[in-house]
Amino acid sequence: MAERRSAAIVTIGSELVEGLRVDTNTAEIARDISRFGFRVDEAVSVGDDEAVLTRALARLVRVHALVVVTGGLGPTHDDVTREAAAAALGLSMEADPELVTFLQPFLARHKDPRSAAQVLTQAFVLDGAEVLTPTTGTAAGQLVPTPAGTLVLLPGPPREMRPMLARVLERVTPDRAEPRELGVSGMPESDVQNAAQTALETFDGIQLTVLAKPGDVRVILLDQGAGAAALDRAAQAVADELGEACYSLDGSTLAETIVREATVRGVTIAVAESCTGGMVAAALTDVPGSSAVFVGGAVAYSDPSKTRLLSVDPADLAQYGAVSREVAQSMARGALDTFRADIAASVTGIAGPEGGSAEKPVGTVWFGIATRLAGGAEAQSQVAWTGASREAIRARATSMALDLIRREVLKA
Amino acid sequence: MAERRSAAIVTIGSELVEGLRVDTNTAEIARDISRFGFRVDEAVSVGDDEAVLTRALARLVRVHALVVVTGGLGPTHDDVTREAAAAALGLSMEADPELVTFLQPFLARHKDPRSAAQVLTQAFVLDGAEVLTPTTGTAAGQLVPTPAGTLVLLPGPPREMRPMLARVLERVTPDRAEPRELGVSGMPESDVQNAAQTALETFDGIQLTVLAKPGDVRVILLDQGAGAAALDRAAQAVADELGEACYSLDGSTLAETIVREATVRGVTIAVAESCTGGMVAAALTDVPGSSAVFVGGAVAYSDPSKTRLLSVDPADLAQYGAVSREVAQSMARGALDTFRADIAASVTGIAGPEGGSAEKPVGTVWFGIATRLAGGAEAQSQVAWTGASREAIRARATSMALDLIRREVLKA
Repeated sequence: MAERRSAAIVTIGSELVEGLRVDTNTAEIARDISRFGFRVDEAVSVGDDEAVLTRALARLVRVHALVVVTGGLGPTHDDVTREAAAAALGLSMEADPELVTFLQPFLARHKDPRSAAQVLTQAFVLDGAEVLTPTTGTAAGQLVPTPAGTLVLLPGPPREMRPMLARVLERVTPDRAEPRELGVSGMPESDVQNAAQTALETFDGIQLTVLAKPGDVRVILLDQGAGAAALDRAAQAVADELGEACYSLDGSTLAETIVREATVRGVTIAVAESCTGGMVAAALTDVPGSSAVFVGGAVAYSDPSKTRLLSVDPADLAQYGAVSREVAQSMARGALDTFRADIAASVTGIAGPEGGSAEKPVGTVWFGIATRLAGGAEAQSQVAWTGASREAIRARATSMALDLIRREVLKA
Repeated sequence: MAERRSAAIVTIGSELVEGLRVDTNTAEIARDISRFGFRVDEAVSVGDDEAVLTRALARLVRVHALVVVTGGLGPTHDDVTREAAAAALGLSMEADPELVTFLQPFLARHKDPRSAAQVLTQAFVLDGAEVLTPTTGTAAGQLVPTPAGTLVLLPGPPREMRPMLARVLERVTPDRAEPRELGVSGMPESDVQNAAQTALETFDGIQLTVLAKPGDVRVILLDQGAGAAALDRAAQAVADELGEACYSLDGSTLAETIVREATVRGVTIAVAESCTGGMVAAALTDVPGSSAVFVGGAVAYSDPSKTRLLSVDPADLAQYGAVSREVAQSMARGALDTFRADIAASVTGIAGPEGGSAEKPVGTVWFGIATRLAGGAEAQSQVAWTGASREAIRARATSMALDLIRREVLKA
């Protein structure tokens, strides 16, 4: 495999350097171009300031084989990318006749001739550049030769940037296989890391990255010369080492895995939620096609609603409290009956910041699972994520409930 | 107001330049330091590469009055920030005795003496630097004098970085008031922009930023010399111009506004969701204290569950279909009864990608609202977000349902 060539990504917009918007273009572009022989050495964000951008580009086009710029190609005064690129490279600009024609329909929308003239600034192209005509929006991209390689100018809005970058990359042959991404649930990050390292001991040319979110860990295998076939074998070896905790080898989420496996098996799912307040149902219904397996959910936030919707015995609520093994069990059983589902899961806990006690601190969560398939067998588990924030407790409880559903679906 | 001094933010980590993780530190730090006389001119991300980082820092410390670096201060081989900063500034490093003492308890956890030695790399401090002892984690920060001003080294994990940056900024007097943030719902972004511009015509020294998410628009007023009192007057003027569409002047979300206003008025809320699948309930229960006003929600994803949980007449489902004015109305009425709430809202729609028809295309969504307060009065509205993605349709429907609930709560 050839030496990687150096690349830089530049994002433009005052809202980025003022901290008003998080930049997601850089991560997306970095993932895409890294498969095509490039190593992203630096990513730079600058405001809508022509002088600052000119200085940055003048430096970058001399040291990087590829410089990808997004943003600042629109029609307003804030859009300074074309001018800055021309100044940085010492190139002149001319209006491209085809772009002028392309922009005609957009000119007609403006009554004020000054606004119409503004639109036409988007027709200007650097001397020697190749034009990338937009498929959405009005901002054209440009491919410009530089001392060290190529400068690519792309529009800022992701839905305009994405198809244009894809068209540029279509011409190049990738020198690396696409990364493999495994989903893991119900195992701590450090154990996942150790298991993956053990499985990868016999493989060369694969870089391991482990990323953790609350209750969910992603194992990413990057091709560093191993190739697609070895990457597949390595992913399988990692999955084998992780065992039941590994729920997908193709990057799909826990909810996507549940919907796919439940669809294949023809089983239906319902949920009864208290502290997660609809998040488990929302995760499942986020998946296209989930209506084939997900019948419904009850968000029983108050005690009376637990009784009315899920037939939880008021005596149990009084004796054991809403956050208890008994209530979790009967919420799951209730959801199974109410929704006539094959599998039902329940979550009841204290997400805080209020509502905790010495006996049941904030972070105490009970889960229940009920199933028609195994003769009504029921399992339940309790966790105590003390010290975690409301947001983290809810996110972890959602992942854990989904993982319980997944393991039950796989038994069907 | 004095001239703004130039600042740069540097984030470090291969996962950033490889596109595996989106950088959120930059936006957070930019917002914080911009109130203290600094103008962020560039934000740079580099991988865990000592040579690349050294070159970047050598350039940045000569042109910016403030350079803030996050990441690369841990104990592993990948942590190269201390070494790169020392090389860039031509400074030597020494182990700080107080940090050595601080790290002792962490050394004891390692049996392997090489691992223990690794931990101690975190005690090394640049010549002339001030040490920032960590309150969480083990990575210390440093304040280093540079040719153009100051270099600040901070740990990468946000929960370690945040308190340390706050301690640094506590010593400085802010020269700008905190930004004011208004929430707006049920009005297109361009109308919000026009209304805000009109309201701000008589104000000087305020920068307007309008950020749009599906169904929700944020108006941000940045102090450019106007001061806190003028900023408050301007926020009120913008709110007056926006009218009922403006739901908050203090940055709170739609759900936070609902919980606050419903708590004050002592009214309870329930929801019945189909296409949003729990997202409305999840948004409301995300707010601490929501259990005082939110009684529960039904995610009625299948037709039978609409009948069983919400008493929707099967004849209506057959005659009008699940996505119809009639079913939306009776879902809201059913939720009011099932949950014994004062206000109930319903959402039923086609989020796609499947399930659309010529008569009811993907993006068709009906909303219902039922209330005990106004003698059972009901309103409903239909939208058709054709061409939008499943994700966007669900997000917009969630915002719209929350906005309907808010407007109903305000009548109470």
